[in-house]
Amino acid sequence: MNRRERNPEVLFQLALDGDRSALARLLSMIEQGGDAARVVGRLSYPRGGHAYTVGLTGAPGAGKSTLTSAIIGHLRKADIEVAVLAIDPSSPFTGGAILGDRVRMQDHATDPGVFIRSMATRGHLGGLSLATPEAIRLLDAIGRHWVLVETVGVGQVEVEVAGKADTTVVVVNPGWGDSVQANKAGLMEIADVFVINKADRKGADETRRDLEQMLDLSDIPHGEWRPPIVATVASAGQGVDELWDVVGQHRDFIVANGELERRRRFRLREELREIVARRLEQKAREICTGDRWDQLTDGVVQRTIDPWSAADEMLNPVSA
Amino acid sequence: MNRRERNPEVLFQLALDGDRSALARLLSMIEQGGDAARVVGRLSYPRGGHAYTVGLTGAPGAGKSTLTSAIIGHLRKADIEVAVLAIDPSSPFTGGAILGDRVRMQDHATDPGVFIRSMATRGHLGGLSLATPEAIRLLDAIGRHWVLVETVGVGQVEVEVAGKADTTVVVVNPGWGDSVQANKAGLMEIADVFVINKADRKGADETRRDLEQMLDLSDIPHGEWRPPIVATVASAGQGVDELWDVVGQHRDFIVANGELERRRRFRLREELREIVARRLEQKAREICTGDRWDQLTDGVVQRTIDPWSAADEMLNPVSA
Repeated sequence: MNRRERNPEVLFQLALDGDRSALARLLSMIEQGGDAARVVGRLSYPRGGHAYTVGLTGAPGAGKSTLTSAIIGHLRKADIEVAVLAIDPSSPFTGGAILGDRVRMQDHATDPGVFIRSMATRGHLGGLSLATPEAIRLLDAIGRHWVLVETVGVGQVEVEVAGKADTTVVVVNPGWGDSVQANKAGLMEIADVFVINKADRKGADETRRDLEQMLDLSDIPHGEWRPPIVATVASAGQGVDELWDVVGQHRDFIVANGELERRRRFRLREELREIVARRLEQKAREICTGDRWDQLTDGVVQRTIDPWSAADEMLNPVSA
Repeated sequence: MNRRERNPEVLFQLALDGDRSALARLLSMIEQGGDAARVVGRLSYPRGGHAYTVGLTGAPGAGKSTLTSAIIGHLRKADIEVAVLAIDPSSPFTGGAILGDRVRMQDHATDPGVFIRSMATRGHLGGLSLATPEAIRLLDAIGRHWVLVETVGVGQVEVEVAGKADTTVVVVNPGWGDSVQANKAGLMEIADVFVINKADRKGADETRRDLEQMLDLSDIPHGEWRPPIVATVASAGQGVDELWDVVGQHRDFIVANGELERRRRFRLREELREIVARRLEQKAREICTGDRWDQLTDGVVQRTIDPWSAADEMLNPVSA
């Protein structure tokens, strides 16, 4: 590939043919937003619909990267291709240049069946909540049908992004309570599966009882999915087979009862609503600037026009 | 006045002639927002520009109402007319029906030179941050040239509303730290004058030192206004004369150096920006509903259209 290639249509064709650096460049376009990102979206959309996404979230240090790496190993033994998006809303670094503790995943860096990408946001209008589903659709379109979405923390953005996967895995540790206190309710709400990682440490049993009790309290109706709790020691590969079995059970469950379709439909509606809201926001920023804006605010200050009428005049080309 | 009168132009004329219930009705229109509110705004605007607003804010229980009542008494002795807006974003009650601890102000209820009004928000698009300046403009237009704006708490909304006055008075008590911990920085930022009310209680000196120290730390440039600290015992009328003197000094200061004009200009620009943003928000809500919205989201779910193009189609009548 020409290293300076910037045409998304050319890059898309190259990515379809397996060119990883073309794929990386398309993902950068999605991160950066703008017109190129929209072209990528238009190219991806008709080819998608086959990927299944698994979100992994939990407090920093819970061992998500090690667990993700272990899951990749598990899938690769069965010759299943996989893509990983590592979402870090707090980091200005992207593109895998600085992967931090994700270095363990580099075990798989030379495996063509594995694609790992760290994502942050660089000016994408709507940020990661819009860039992430777009990135997943691109991976889907070029034939990566298992996408793991790992988020680095348990803040609002991370939980939101992770909760938009088809199956969401919440990773905790023995004695988890303190580290996620601030967003326990948010994590309970999005979890389809709980993992107690580092389960060889003291307090694993108490943590299981703690989770079971919270699930009892959340009063899940009969016939609904109750998140199973899986114990793992990811660094030793323990419990990963069972975890993946449980993820498969959840998938079968939500396919069978129509929940997967409802979830995806709901997410697309939310995404569309978000796009509309962001576009109007941008519109407002564009409107509230420039000569015409200055003239009208001067008019308001000098009382030749009232604020509401001034807003009408500003909005005229928009609301006409 | 005909009790059923609903024409804002008729009501405005009556209010100009001193009819208090017409004024109360116009303020209700502003609270409720909508077309009538905008008519009131258009009527008020050209007649304004004479009122000076003093904001009073502080933690619940700090004695703001007692202090406001004492200030009213001080102004009435000099035969100055005054209007008070008591802003309570947390209350669904308005119009002075339930005044809570503002009952002390009822001392002035029968005085035609005093107009007291409790304001909350009932569906006003943009809430109190837009209704309050509109209410002030109305009071200004009908000839109330001193407007006291009292807010009930130290939350984000209260601080924002209070901070939009020409002179902002922050009321604290001895040992104030704990009660306003959450928003100390916000209060420091808006204060033009500090009042230590209930200054006869233990800890008044420490509180003054505390405030002076924070002012030292905030590193006010030479020649800028440094908020004075006034001790009052509002329930006994002590310190109120001094407080009003200091408010007058602040007024003279910001008139002389052009700061008053800058503040007002800035506030009007902010208000106009807010109106534009709110109108676009409403537009987004209107857009993301109805048959066309359903059809387009169905199209996105069925992959006959990508989300960005669907958003384009939804926005077409807006952005054309």
